[in-house]
Amino acid sequence: MYFKNIGIAGLGLIGGSFAKAFACKGIKVYGFDVNKSVLFHAVESRIFEGVTDEFEKFINFPLDLLYICIPVQSAVCFIEMLGQAEYKKAVTDGCSTKTTILKAAKNNNLYFCGGHPIKGKETSGFTNSEQDLYNGAKHILTSMGYHELDNALEELHKSINMQVCKMTSYEHDTIFANISHLPHLISFCLMDTVLNKNKEALSFAGGGFRDFTRIAASDAWMWSDIFMDNKKALLECVENLEKNITIWKNMIKDDNKKMLFDKIEEVSGERRKL
Amino acid sequence: MYFKNIGIAGLGLIGGSFAKAFACKGIKVYGFDVNKSVLFHAVESRIFEGVTDEFEKFINFPLDLLYICIPVQSAVCFIEMLGQAEYKKAVTDGCSTKTTILKAAKNNNLYFCGGHPIKGKETSGFTNSEQDLYNGAKHILTSMGYHELDNALEELHKSINMQVCKMTSYEHDTIFANISHLPHLISFCLMDTVLNKNKEALSFAGGGFRDFTRIAASDAWMWSDIFMDNKKALLECVENLEKNITIWKNMIKDDNKKMLFDKIEEVSGERRKL
Repeated sequence: MYFKNIGIAGLGLIGGSFAKAFACKGIKVYGFDVNKSVLFHAVESRIFEGVTDEFEKFINFPLDLLYICIPVQSAVCFIEMLGQAEYKKAVTDGCSTKTTILKAAKNNNLYFCGGHPIKGKETSGFTNSEQDLYNGAKHILTSMGYHELDNALEELHKSINMQVCKMTSYEHDTIFANISHLPHLISFCLMDTVLNKNKEALSFAGGGFRDFTRIAASDAWMWSDIFMDNKKALLECVENLEKNITIWKNMIKDDNKKMLFDKIEEVSGERRKL
Repeated sequence: MYFKNIGIAGLGLIGGSFAKAFACKGIKVYGFDVNKSVLFHAVESRIFEGVTDEFEKFINFPLDLLYICIPVQSAVCFIEMLGQAEYKKAVTDGCSTKTTILKAAKNNNLYFCGGHPIKGKETSGFTNSEQDLYNGAKHILTSMGYHELDNALEELHKSINMQVCKMTSYEHDTIFANISHLPHLISFCLMDTVLNKNKEALSFAGGGFRDFTRIAASDAWMWSDIFMDNKKALLECVENLEKNITIWKNMIKDDNKKMLFDKIEEVSGERRKL
């Protein structure tokens, strides 16, 4: 099995970048988006065989893969609509959380394998999408047990120079709660704290603050969805961090400079290894 | 008053970068460091008129400005040594906290004005110092009331293309607790949490995590000093952040998606303005 006609549902940063990368490999791409202005830009890009804002019309394009690239809670609704339409062709997605998606795909009897491209930007939308966004990046597949589909998706993503890794949706959601969802939440939170307590300080923000809060410029629709969807794993991570903040605060309160120095030395050494 | 001979105490990233920038403007620079290997690299750079690891020899170089560029708690000891030697020539510093430094300078009857260049890197040491590190960056002066000295320091830093701002040491330490010391502490803490709870997740770290934790690679000596020295303002910031984390956590726990979306929308909009 390999894919010659791919339909992308959701022409934002993620869907737009996949569409451009696939089109560049000679694959025919079709687009679906509910936003007319996005469809206008999509038509203007001249990479699509067809675009539409009608669900029925979209699923009747001659697709051999349907790629869902919308925020996770909307993706679950989209999967339910596919279930109601008794859609039987291959489906995958590019959402940042995987447990709910896989559950919905199973409940709706889809021929499905989950996916997550590990590359983002703090900008969003089709106009910010890039043909090379995923070049060299990791792509995670979370299988539902359809091995022929899994292998075809592996080949597809390798063909646009992505490194494919496979894991369960539970492993995926735990890992990304730690290294993506928690940092995003804390970056929003820190920005919020400084805005409330000492907004004028922002004019002195140096490179460190800018880097630390770069991800706080991320898209509200996508991130409120992710936080809600990965609630359990995320809240566990937040609680681990809170306990750790108390430990670090106490080292400072108790003037325990030796311990503080050793901790920073350990952590900064590990960071430099990344 | 202007400076033709500047002595730099501490030839790390900060002192080394100032030495290179001043030397490039035709100012004679002299260096002091207790580390022999640093002195070797300093001699090798051929920008110094003289370097030494002896305090007495250093303060007897024909200096018209002595620039202290060592971590804050060591800087306070250095100021006490200058006090004991009844040093009367102009002195400034480049430390990241200002209240303790100014208090020490006053107690030791120095002819002093505090300073803080707003530019860092996560690397440290003379070999990472750069002539252009401070080009275009802000430099904050915290005056002790010696206006002729303050003006001369303003001119000096403008001559290497820095933007000079003046404020009190209290204003300075509050602003930087918020936008520098708090992000560094939280970045160390988050890195520590992930290392303890899910180290293998680090191999999937994308650009967001890398940016968010870049400052967690910072120097342990400098940062343990800063955290101890600005303890009061920093702990207040940490407590504000902790309260805010509870608010964000509760929005997620309570499924309050509308409020979460609005908060992210507000915060991300402000971040994009930076």
